Amino acid sequence: MRKPIQLDSVKDIAVRTAGRTQEVMAAIRARMANRTLAGGDRLPSIRGLATSMGVSPSTVVEAYDRLSAEGLIRPQRGSGFYVAGRAAGPLALAESEPKRDRAVDPFWVSRQSLDADQRVMRPGCGWLPASWMPTAALRRAVRGLARCEDDLLADYAGTRGALTLRRLLLARFAEEGISASLDQLMLTSSGTQALDMVCRFLLRPGDAVLVDDPCYFNFRALLRAHQVRIVSVPYTQSGPDLAAFETVLREDHPRLYITNSALHNPTGATLSLQTAHRLLTLAAAHDLTIVEDDIFADFEPEPSPRLASLDGLARVIRIGSFSKTISASIRCGYIAARSDWTEDLIDLQVATNFTGPSPLVTEIIARVLTDGLYRKHRQALHPKLSRARRETAAQLRALGIEPWAMPRGGFNLWCRLPEGLDSTRVTKAAMDEDVVLAPGNVFSVSQTAGNFMRFNVAQCGEPRFWEVLRRALATARQEQGS
Amino acid sequence: MRKPIQLDSVKDIAVRTAGRTQEVMAAIRARMANRTLAGGDRLPSIRGLATSMGVSPSTVVEAYDRLSAEGLIRPQRGSGFYVAGRAAGPLALAESEPKRDRAVDPFWVSRQSLDADQRVMRPGCGWLPASWMPTAALRRAVRGLARCEDDLLADYAGTRGALTLRRLLLARFAEEGISASLDQLMLTSSGTQALDMVCRFLLRPGDAVLVDDPCYFNFRALLRAHQVRIVSVPYTQSGPDLAAFETVLREDHPRLYITNSALHNPTGATLSLQTAHRLLTLAAAHDLTIVEDDIFADFEPEPSPRLASLDGLARVIRIGSFSKTISASIRCGYIAARSDWTEDLIDLQVATNFTGPSPLVTEIIARVLTDGLYRKHRQALHPKLSRARRETAAQLRALGIEPWAMPRGGFNLWCRLPEGLDSTRVTKAAMDEDVVLAPGNVFSVSQTAGNFMRFNVAQCGEPRFWEVLRRALATARQEQGS
Repeated sequence: MRKPIQLDSVKDIAVRTAGRTQEVMAAIRARMANRTLAGGDRLPSIRGLATSMGVSPSTVVEAYDRLSAEGLIRPQRGSGFYVAGRAAGPLALAESEPKRDRAVDPFWVSRQSLDADQRVMRPGCGWLPASWMPTAALRRAVRGLARCEDDLLADYAGTRGALTLRRLLLARFAEEGISASLDQLMLTSSGTQALDMVCRFLLRPGDAVLVDDPCYFNFRALLRAHQVRIVSVPYTQSGPDLAAFETVLREDHPRLYITNSALHNPTGATLSLQTAHRLLTLAAAHDLTIVEDDIFADFEPEPSPRLASLDGLARVIRIGSFSKTISASIRCGYIAARSDWTEDLIDLQVATNFTGPSPLVTEIIARVLTDGLYRKHRQALHPKLSRARRETAAQLRALGIEPWAMPRGGFNLWCRLPEGLDSTRVTKAAMDEDVVLAPGNVFSVSQTAGNFMRFNVAQCGEPRFWEVLRRALATARQEQGS
Repeated sequence: MRKPIQLDSVKDIAVRTAGRTQEVMAAIRARMANRTLAGGDRLPSIRGLATSMGVSPSTVVEAYDRLSAEGLIRPQRGSGFYVAGRAAGPLALAESEPKRDRAVDPFWVSRQSLDADQRVMRPGCGWLPASWMPTAALRRAVRGLARCEDDLLADYAGTRGALTLRRLLLARFAEEGISASLDQLMLTSSGTQALDMVCRFLLRPGDAVLVDDPCYFNFRALLRAHQVRIVSVPYTQSGPDLAAFETVLREDHPRLYITNSALHNPTGATLSLQTAHRLLTLAAAHDLTIVEDDIFADFEPEPSPRLASLDGLARVIRIGSFSKTISASIRCGYIAARSDWTEDLIDLQVATNFTGPSPLVTEIIARVLTDGLYRKHRQALHPKLSRARRETAAQLRALGIEPWAMPRGGFNLWCRLPEGLDSTRVTKAAMDEDVVLAPGNVFSVSQTAGNFMRFNVAQCGEPRFWEVLRRALATARQEQGS
């Protein structure tokens, strides 16, 4: 499928330079592999290495920049580059110490949201409060399980996960026009783990991976763990900017494009059918594989275009989970892909997880999905979320905070702050008062969303939140004024 | 901690050769990174590359062998070496097609055992039948959960997993003399996932990792996914062979040693206190980190020496799970390690799984652990397993199959087949009659256990199994005779 690099007259010089950059990168990697450079060591000076390898200093700079982007080395202000990690060399992903005062990076929002105690409000988190979840259906499913067979309580599932849930998923796919077979589908412990498996399977350190800008912040965290080069395209009201998309495909040759079409996170925008079609045409021309994360599907009042529906799981890998819509406690995800890839992914699943999700967990999900209570819950949830979006938007506008778009469903509102206020400053000020916000730049590879913020309309109900937000805006305004 | 390679007079030549081997390996890796060598491509000939790089052909052979061991390339009989994987370059771990007739590699036993239907007997699998598990306690726990709070049904756990279960684990550690704090402990989706996380954290492709020979076969599968070099030491009745251990530490500088002390898998042997002490002294001298998998702890009638108890989680990382002793359906594992490492591991958990195991799952485990029914179940299980070991051993001996040791607990019997019979042949013959066995070499890095087989005494009860085994032995005898 992928061809060796082709030299042509126009790109000759660029490619030769790229070759020399690769040589420098390989040399550094070799020294790290044979431990002449260990974690914490300083790298050779740019000028010194340029001389000894017979390349230009700018080539070394380019190589060091790329190794930094891969997380293998890190620059230290005024004193050159260092091998990442501690002396023992473990993989350190955080940008600083992982405490409350750590850098507000993609990990910050997750860890603050997940580890917050009851007193902390979380309008920056990416899930519904438990009281908005289908707990009646969940409770009925759990109650039923106390009478299930011993196997379900005590035995492993098969390597692909429980048949019942896989059949239900295939039926849902069929409704969307995706005809897939059982051997194209495997269950995973979560949606995140599904994406992680696909990345382990398809990516190698140094590969380029394309995401939307803005995108779900944990895509960035996960890709950092894979030590790949992250490139991005601006996301518009109808999907990724196609001109930018084409340029990136031509120039960066990304191995993978990771996106979520239905109710895009964080923008809430909807992919248009035309954009989907053109995007897939470009993907075919550049042999790009696409991962489409369908995690918000059940929040859509009516289904919108899906890349997987147009493509039919040829170059699109669909992943998803039920963590947002059924339960974040009873976690389960899935991967639907080409059947030969699924076969290999199962080996990877066996090696790294032994089996898929707990059979007990998949049985609960299957029971909820087929329970009339869940259908009713969904029907009631759409207008409830719609009202929350409208009310939250109105309260935000009263503070000068303007939604970038009004989503058709879901709980995310992607908003621009007033007067060029820096959302990271606002976030830090709110954290001092036990409110976790999600500042724009954690979603932005290009770091151009400093003036944006994502609000979870289902977590904005408490009056205290609005007081804290008002004060945090004032604090940021003061800091930026001074 | 780890120092760059030191040259000394004795090792000079060896180290210089190693350096040149690394150079060749780095060159090939660089070509793979910049796609001048893609999946499925043939590598340069040994003679050709030796000439062009100015090294001896034996250096190229050594480099190719190591890259093969890492899974990056693979030899093809009579036609040189090829880049592993398909043209698109995904990670292919299997040694051949993953069907019933795929090579009997470490994946074979797992996949046959997990995906077998009811009709198939599994004396080669690594778990108890559901009827031997504490299903009464499990059922009581599930029943109780139908009345739990909404949060437990629908919300995420914190990044370290539920506090209740972590506290229970710490109390158990304290009984073993391991004093650990809550920030040294995190819950994972499974024991396998715990090991996978530790490997992602500490290992880089090409690192050497030490395991026992024989060892749990999925250690081999997992390490292959990490593209590391696997080295091994023979396991004796009282732990690893310490002379071999020291030689490997000196010559291969493994980054990690992965073992399970209590009821070693597959041998059932018990680590002696002296071996534990000497092993830790050697580990300290060579700055070796140890992962001790405590998965079989609850099968021990009385506790045996643990590396973690002697070391106190300084250079030992303890992992474990409840899949063997409580439920393989309700999966949950843990990692106990240095607190600074745990902090970084949590970032890795967030990036790759978002959170730890389902709170519902950890709550069930916690309830079972504290339920008197489980205590009674364990007390009844020891004599039941003991009887099964004795009876199975007697039946095996009647067929000329001799246990290598009689374990103090658990369900594994590691046995030598009669007359130098090849256990892979026996396994294939048994598979034709729907019986999954576990032949010795899937446990053996050095491939020196071809005459051994692991039997699960709790899965050997059916008379038909013994008929099949008798016929399979006869088939192998005939094949080897001809």
